[in-house]
Amino acid sequence: MKLLLKIAYCGENYCGWQVQKNGVTVQGLLCEASKSVYGDGVKITGCSRTDSGVHAKEYYCTVEAPLGAPVIPNGRVPSALNRYLPSDISVIEASVVSDDFHARYDVKSKMYEYVFDNGEQRNPFLTKRAWHIPKRLDEGLMNEAAKEFIGTHDFRAFMASGSDVKDTVRSVLFAEVVRLDDIVKFRVSADGFLYNMVRIMAGTLYEISIGKLSAEDIRKAISEKNRSAVGVTAPPDGLYLVNVVYR
Amino acid sequence: MKLLLKIAYCGENYCGWQVQKNGVTVQGLLCEASKSVYGDGVKITGCSRTDSGVHAKEYYCTVEAPLGAPVIPNGRVPSALNRYLPSDISVIEASVVSDDFHARYDVKSKMYEYVFDNGEQRNPFLTKRAWHIPKRLDEGLMNEAAKEFIGTHDFRAFMASGSDVKDTVRSVLFAEVVRLDDIVKFRVSADGFLYNMVRIMAGTLYEISIGKLSAEDIRKAISEKNRSAVGVTAPPDGLYLVNVVYR
Repeated sequence: MKLLLKIAYCGENYCGWQVQKNGVTVQGLLCEASKSVYGDGVKITGCSRTDSGVHAKEYYCTVEAPLGAPVIPNGRVPSALNRYLPSDISVIEASVVSDDFHARYDVKSKMYEYVFDNGEQRNPFLTKRAWHIPKRLDEGLMNEAAKEFIGTHDFRAFMASGSDVKDTVRSVLFAEVVRLDDIVKFRVSADGFLYNMVRIMAGTLYEISIGKLSAEDIRKAISEKNRSAVGVTAPPDGLYLVNVVYR
Repeated sequence: MKLLLKIAYCGENYCGWQVQKNGVTVQGLLCEASKSVYGDGVKITGCSRTDSGVHAKEYYCTVEAPLGAPVIPNGRVPSALNRYLPSDISVIEASVVSDDFHARYDVKSKMYEYVFDNGEQRNPFLTKRAWHIPKRLDEGLMNEAAKEFIGTHDFRAFMASGSDVKDTVRSVLFAEVVRLDDIVKFRVSADGFLYNMVRIMAGTLYEISIGKLSAEDIRKAISEKNRSAVGVTAPPDGLYLVNVVYR
């Protein structure tokens, strides 16, 4: 039986989602918790790799328990797993999916949010949860520039080196920048994202706000596929996966 | 010269405001930072003692630098001090006050907020920042009961043992309970608070929501000054000092 879990986690203490040899990861802890509940041989597949320090308000993964594992009613699964998880990771919901469902390949679109702490002095409650920019950001200008991302484009310019992805064409469905008091949020939804794509977009919007780049530079960088023509990679602290839509 | 600082801190890593021998406190760290900026002999007075683990979105303290200490323009003081403070403590503003101003005795009223995380599963972003109550709280009933706090009463029933305060009469100016999605907030403003008063009020409202106590019990406990007739002391995690009004 294949279960789809909706989870959430604060990433500040983790080396991202994906299991790795050195470093504590969300998948690693979820594997251990699942082992405590279902026994050996559980397989966990996530909807996305998230980088070290990146957060998820909504993340999905499938859990496949081996034949003969205890059967737990869906409604009890979250509490059963949460007992074995640290409090900065939380299983919210569980539902049964068909055996051919794939947590990653069946994603239709995902939405990320990038949070800027734009108070003159840092907000002590946003340590490791936002990028602190003391100087006033121009959210209007950033919002206008963000519209350049919308559409189907080759986003090679917004991919960190070190990725071996061949097809770098993605469709951005939605992009906006909004302010609420000292918080500025960049939200972007797409059918897929390249390595560090949202963080490079966020860094580019920051550089547009400070006048180092312009919306025109986004257009040019996309058409020329030129990574060095866009902004810095924003720190992981401000990045949240906030929504996943399945086919 | 006496400076009034507006600061904010996330209390999860601290043993409260007040300097103590064993344990890291906000006042202790602010003393050290002030020493780095102004040199030896700085005196710091806070507006309130906050318990271990309690947070402050707005807290005030005065800083008195000795004669001959460097003079720093008000606008630069926050950044100068923040350089020497951990990122979960932040100095927001500084202003000059008269020598006879007292950070604690001149407080006219303070407002606290108590945050309940009322999602069925815990919110990973509210670890150490809220009291997680999985069962749905009745915010309407809690709000009605909270109105019993309003007025000038002897709040001895809402004081933890171990306090040597003699005058236990306080005036509560405002009290309400509101919900936003899975967050339930109890807000209360008064001319002063007894030891653990807000946490006992929050615990009492919780017990009213689960039917263990009623609004009538608040009235009775106040008139009988009976601590054992009211609710548990809610954990410090959910408590925030949010506003201080000076005379």
